[in-house]
Amino acid sequence: MVRFFVSPSDISDGTIALGSEDAAHMRSLRLRPSELFVVCDGAGSDYICRLAERGGGASGITHDSPVAQIVERVPSRGEPAVSCGVYIAYAQSERLDYAVQKSVELGAREITVFPSKRCEAIPRDVPKRIARLQRIALETAKLCGRGIVPPVSAAASFEDAIGSASQAGLALFLYECEENQHLKQALERWSDDYITRSTDRIAGSDSQPPATQSVSIVTGPVGGFEPSEAEYAKSAGMHTVTLGPRILRCETAPVVTLAAVMYHTGNL
Amino acid sequence: MVRFFVSPSDISDGTIALGSEDAAHMRSLRLRPSELFVVCDGAGSDYICRLAERGGGASGITHDSPVAQIVERVPSRGEPAVSCGVYIAYAQSERLDYAVQKSVELGAREITVFPSKRCEAIPRDVPKRIARLQRIALETAKLCGRGIVPPVSAAASFEDAIGSASQAGLALFLYECEENQHLKQALERWSDDYITRSTDRIAGSDSQPPATQSVSIVTGPVGGFEPSEAEYAKSAGMHTVTLGPRILRCETAPVVTLAAVMYHTGNL
Repeated sequence: MVRFFVSPSDISDGTIALGSEDAAHMRSLRLRPSELFVVCDGAGSDYICRLAERGGGASGITHDSPVAQIVERVPSRGEPAVSCGVYIAYAQSERLDYAVQKSVELGAREITVFPSKRCEAIPRDVPKRIARLQRIALETAKLCGRGIVPPVSAAASFEDAIGSASQAGLALFLYECEENQHLKQALERWSDDYITRSTDRIAGSDSQPPATQSVSIVTGPVGGFEPSEAEYAKSAGMHTVTLGPRILRCETAPVVTLAAVMYHTGNL
Repeated sequence: MVRFFVSPSDISDGTIALGSEDAAHMRSLRLRPSELFVVCDGAGSDYICRLAERGGGASGITHDSPVAQIVERVPSRGEPAVSCGVYIAYAQSERLDYAVQKSVELGAREITVFPSKRCEAIPRDVPKRIARLQRIALETAKLCGRGIVPPVSAAASFEDAIGSASQAGLALFLYECEENQHLKQALERWSDDYITRSTDRIAGSDSQPPATQSVSIVTGPVGGFEPSEAEYAKSAGMHTVTLGPRILRCETAPVVTLAAVMYHTGNL
């Protein structure tokens, strides 16, 4: 079913107010008046809907603010149980578009782009670039059945990106010069720790809720990270990991790492 | 280091004959006479080389058949221990290019494209399309450090593709309507079987070598597979599996599945 996103405040009394962009999308799809579609509140609920009479139901989408009649409310199925933040160094337009699109398909919770020393493609107009990436995130979330539209933002500096990424339960820094630690080892060690901590908590009747599974993935530009950047990430508590002997392109690395995290945690 | 591929017959007496395309590539890279580069025989060996005197060493690449002087021979590091065949239903040019490029980066052993019922993009000139995809496979193998150039071929029919894919040790058919079996379950069951078989073989002093780990991955077109196609694959012994609740694009599914197989088998 076709999918639209609204904010929870657009929903009231069994109907949902849609905007002019959604109206245009409905017209381009030639949505029939009787056809069901999904409206997601971006907060965990999907609403199965059809067009309301006053929303242009019988006569098609003739104006710019169609109204959807709620038929049924169901929980969104598209959200993984693990919260993954993906941090991607600036790259050429096409590569960055691709990395964002695939990250949304795979279930990223949020996406951050950031500058690093070897970046050759820092955009002149960052807000415009972010708006474009956010648009890709929205279109992809609609198509692949996400329960949220992952927010895309820009970190002002490499240090800011690391400062935020290092807060995750497992903070992964993809570094091609890392020779000892593979992604799989880091994920397995983390799972073991997580299970141990959860068991301890149950045994000790600790009333605190279990920590949310959160993972951050930081990947570099075409030329890779500089050794000083890897050192900085390590000193902030991140795990530097390698993806093995084959060199992955800068737009492939975040996607492959995210796929591995989703696979490992049973979210694929 | 820059990487070139030759056939083993081009190697003799400590030198390697390179062709005119490699010469053009060297010129475009402005390769210096003293610079080291890698020549791979596509059969497991990498040769660290520099240009031979008679190959234009001192004067740069001035003619179309440069000769490389072998400095050292080392085993290729870029090949995974698991042999993965990826079968991709025809899709629009850009999507297919992408799926082939990423499959090579991730370590696919070979790639096959095939028609299926809902394919809307079967090329008019199949040999031309295959030649283009093979070219992408070569360029990608050079960049990502593969030890082979994965061959790309076209299956004449869906049935031919399934006939070949079903021969693998683990034959996976990605089907979005599969509700019970997840990719992870199929991979875990297969690993357990594999370990059991290997242990039995050792215990029984069976002189046969262990079966090679081989996996095939079959993915569908934009509209997915028809139920009759999934039934056909099942009857041929393939495992129909799902990648979970999020709908992946047709060019994303083979890449994500391959990433999961490589991760699961310790090849990432």
